[in-house]
Amino acid sequence: MTAARVKLVEVGPRDGLQNEPARLTVAERCALIERLAEAGFSSIEAGAFVSPDKVPQMADTAAVLAGLKLDSPIGYPVLVPNERGLDAALAAGAREIAVFAAASDTFSQRNIGADVDASLKRYEAVVRRALDAGLLVRGYVSCVAGCPYEGPIAPERVEEVAGALWEMGCDEISLGDTIGVATPNTVLAMLDAVADRVPVAQLAGHFHDTYGMASANVYAAWRAGVMTFDCSVAGLGGCPYARGATGNVASEDLVWLFKGLGVETGVDLARLVEVAHWISQRLGRAPASRVAHALAPH
Amino acid sequence: MTAARVKLVEVGPRDGLQNEPARLTVAERCALIERLAEAGFSSIEAGAFVSPDKVPQMADTAAVLAGLKLDSPIGYPVLVPNERGLDAALAAGAREIAVFAAASDTFSQRNIGADVDASLKRYEAVVRRALDAGLLVRGYVSCVAGCPYEGPIAPERVEEVAGALWEMGCDEISLGDTIGVATPNTVLAMLDAVADRVPVAQLAGHFHDTYGMASANVYAAWRAGVMTFDCSVAGLGGCPYARGATGNVASEDLVWLFKGLGVETGVDLARLVEVAHWISQRLGRAPASRVAHALAPH
Repeated sequence: MTAARVKLVEVGPRDGLQNEPARLTVAERCALIERLAEAGFSSIEAGAFVSPDKVPQMADTAAVLAGLKLDSPIGYPVLVPNERGLDAALAAGAREIAVFAAASDTFSQRNIGADVDASLKRYEAVVRRALDAGLLVRGYVSCVAGCPYEGPIAPERVEEVAGALWEMGCDEISLGDTIGVATPNTVLAMLDAVADRVPVAQLAGHFHDTYGMASANVYAAWRAGVMTFDCSVAGLGGCPYARGATGNVASEDLVWLFKGLGVETGVDLARLVEVAHWISQRLGRAPASRVAHALAPH
Repeated sequence: MTAARVKLVEVGPRDGLQNEPARLTVAERCALIERLAEAGFSSIEAGAFVSPDKVPQMADTAAVLAGLKLDSPIGYPVLVPNERGLDAALAAGAREIAVFAAASDTFSQRNIGADVDASLKRYEAVVRRALDAGLLVRGYVSCVAGCPYEGPIAPERVEEVAGALWEMGCDEISLGDTIGVATPNTVLAMLDAVADRVPVAQLAGHFHDTYGMASANVYAAWRAGVMTFDCSVAGLGGCPYARGATGNVASEDLVWLFKGLGVETGVDLARLVEVAHWISQRLGRAPASRVAHALAPH
């Protein structure tokens, strides 16, 4: 039932950096991705083809991709919000994209300017064209446990959105507890609903540690058969010590958890901790990760 | 199998404060305990009758007890290391004591100056006299997953020590992952062994969040039938962001977890978060708790 090996999707260079105040150079973003690849991640979210006015941290994603070996076995998904983004991703040689939907209309409207149904309609064309071009496609569903505007989200609503993304051809559906309010029973109820329409093996758990529940939620999801988890080196993407911060679960903490469970991740914890301290220093803050602190180099 | 109601033992005023550099006055310690009682804890570790030279933070515990209503339904265990400590606790009117053993000889030797067997022999007299005087006795076992000197600790060693404390008459055995290295499978293997000699209903889980695993470990232990958990307001007892800090799991995080699981704790989360911010301000540091930050008053 439980997986003896899990895939960790490192989202720090996109989901993480996008929510950090500091802005890295293209060379620094490439260096971060390379170090994460060297630490052993097989999938690293590399950037986003979004408006540089809205998300300056993700400007020049094409230049970042140009700095990577895109024909390696490592996956480098890039986020694309629409067909224009897809055009840019294709032109830059991307082999994997991600689209970002939500299980909450209000969140979707505020985040991407369209309600859930309108966003799914928009993604249909994006996904079809991406598949035609031979790309892999990740579908994100955010707010799978709760929404900052609407409160708790019904598992059936998550099922609808995840099912729609799956049926339009996404090969992996990442279920995001965007505001970190889930506890294990919420996670299990949500997974149970989603599993009616999407095979559990194609689901990814994307947890935030805003309330300190990430390790419990990942453990519960893993016990329920989930084999892929998103995580962010050094917890990039918001410091969980500040109110309202996003608090992506730190990759180090997940690698430690799975190491303890005897589950293979392919990631070298010591190297990862080095990367966490290196990027945190560059960003001028402490790693938002317990493991990075506990295992800090002397 | 899983409990619909759990007992949380608030250890901040003893295990927590004892590991904080700042020293509170007797009035402040009483105020902290009173606020925790008002938040709903039914058991609050109130102090320790130990050498004030070694642990100045616990000096004047008799005066702290004098400031509390000891005939209330709330339990106020105090730590006693030996018969002299017991004499002082009895003189101060304590109705519940705790003794502190370890599952590691090296840790025991360095921490209390006796190996495990010698410490258990010493506690036999203490526990017998305490029981004769009508007191309740908590037995702590530390290093139940790992020891800073010896590394991993065998579940059978924990079983021996927990069993010995149980058989000498302790009514509750608190199993402490003192350095926070446990992950859920370690916890389950350890509980499985201990349950051969001590009824699960008499066990308490005492977890540290040093590596971000506390919520997963508590969840796993609760699923295995444990009904009592130790926790420390604001994570008192070491800042988990500093290497080597103890990192007691924060009471707020556990109350949040159990609230999410639909499990009754009797504790009012909003009031507890207020106490966490109040005591942290007094100690001149930020709460070491994700929930206290996420729910910080505006």
